[in-house]
Amino acid sequence: MKRPVAVIGLGFMGSALARALACAGFNVCAWTRSAARRAEFSNEFHVSASAVDAVEAADVVVLCITNFDASAEFLELAGLAEALGGKTLIQLTSESPEEARRFATLAEPLGVAVLDGAIATMPSSIGNRDAVIYYSGDRAIFDREHEILAAMAGKPTYCGTDPSDASSMDMAWLSLFYSAALGLIQGIAICQAARLDPSTYLNATPSYLPEILAMSKDFERQTRLDNFTGNQANMTLHLGGAAQVLAVCAAKGLDTRLPQAAVDLIQKSIDAGFAELEFAVAAKVIRPL
Amino acid sequence: MKRPVAVIGLGFMGSALARALACAGFNVCAWTRSAARRAEFSNEFHVSASAVDAVEAADVVVLCITNFDASAEFLELAGLAEALGGKTLIQLTSESPEEARRFATLAEPLGVAVLDGAIATMPSSIGNRDAVIYYSGDRAIFDREHEILAAMAGKPTYCGTDPSDASSMDMAWLSLFYSAALGLIQGIAICQAARLDPSTYLNATPSYLPEILAMSKDFERQTRLDNFTGNQANMTLHLGGAAQVLAVCAAKGLDTRLPQAAVDLIQKSIDAGFAELEFAVAAKVIRPL
Repeated sequence: MKRPVAVIGLGFMGSALARALACAGFNVCAWTRSAARRAEFSNEFHVSASAVDAVEAADVVVLCITNFDASAEFLELAGLAEALGGKTLIQLTSESPEEARRFATLAEPLGVAVLDGAIATMPSSIGNRDAVIYYSGDRAIFDREHEILAAMAGKPTYCGTDPSDASSMDMAWLSLFYSAALGLIQGIAICQAARLDPSTYLNATPSYLPEILAMSKDFERQTRLDNFTGNQANMTLHLGGAAQVLAVCAAKGLDTRLPQAAVDLIQKSIDAGFAELEFAVAAKVIRPL
Repeated sequence: MKRPVAVIGLGFMGSALARALACAGFNVCAWTRSAARRAEFSNEFHVSASAVDAVEAADVVVLCITNFDASAEFLELAGLAEALGGKTLIQLTSESPEEARRFATLAEPLGVAVLDGAIATMPSSIGNRDAVIYYSGDRAIFDREHEILAAMAGKPTYCGTDPSDASSMDMAWLSLFYSAALGLIQGIAICQAARLDPSTYLNATPSYLPEILAMSKDFERQTRLDNFTGNQANMTLHLGGAAQVLAVCAAKGLDTRLPQAAVDLIQKSIDAGFAELEFAVAAKVIRPL
């Protein structure tokens, strides 16, 4: 049995983390606020009687609870400072960049080494080889605890020393996630408005994804080189496509805010003089320098 | 050598189609408006002296030119009616649903059987096993010409008898494409604003795509069953995530129209009483019944 790791929080995400650590052979001692959930998981892991007990039993503590407020409360538990001092805390509670900085400030007086993480994946992907968790803060913990980090997600990715860096990187992923999700859903509505079966469209997703991957590779290269020339499609062509989607949505009485945002951002890029350049140049109008 | 197929248009997409058909063993006779491009491709395919010559030489004609106006002009070429009558026309020029209907009306007097297609992929994916081209109109052509259709894209997908159905389905895919592309680009801007390397984020795309695929499968099942209960994340949780992205963009002075559209659509879903349901229920507020 490997070293003892405490997992505080057994929600959908926390329980997935605890399970992945247990699968990798770590001696998991878990705790969660709900007595019912503690009982539910007591067959799977060692479940401690209190959060402080769990922390006391472990070398490394993984925190994954409701939100920043809950994680701040955790730090104030009676006896926690004594139990946690000198140990390592991996903070995986979902939080904004600003909250990540505040957490680091709150944790500092406790004498605990903190690595701040942001989980860029779903609970069902925890433990997978390709899953990404972003980390920032103490680089030494990231290097030292690689085995624990890799057990939770195969691609632990260090972003920077500022505690907020992982959360900022996570905001970038959430930007893709929400836009893609709502683009898919807008497509469902377009199918329904045309009396077409949305399943035909949604079942084609495995064919669409390589296009998005190829696009992302182009974006990476173009952004890195700050060179947006290319031969895929320029902004003028994209304006035609996006305007067609907008016109169809408007004609069918659908909510137009998503396709309108697309048309506006492409038009803004053309107005900025980027008509002949490829799509990723739009970052320059999203973030005016 | 298999049957002669004419390809009218040798742009980036048309030349990819001609190449895929030639690779599959079809006797391709191609034509394009530009004499320079005709010369360029004359080593690869038989290039006819005129569009009408190409049509005359073939059983099946694939049309993939600039836009609807150009395809309408094609139908008016002197001698075309005689060359095309009794043959099969596969119309792959990019067009809106309304334009697809108009094209069918213009083609009818020529006595040609028309299958209308919309290419839901990039030129570089043409000929691939997983590439999707949507078709609508004459179902008999779709069934009869399967070998030609499968040579151009491995997943020819029939959508309906209305000539506009393929284009409507394509609008759904473009909705995903533009939203995902701009979500990626907004993420680049978020990284840059936080002084993080966008390559770290963009290189993680292969890890993100399975999440989008899993989401799409959930959306398909939930939409088909009209049941949006689930245990991934409800609208209240999504509002938290999307609002965090919006707040970070606003704080960094980034363009907020894309994250604002996401927040608004999620809020609209909550206001409609869907707070406890999963994401795909948003189609109901995008398309009010």
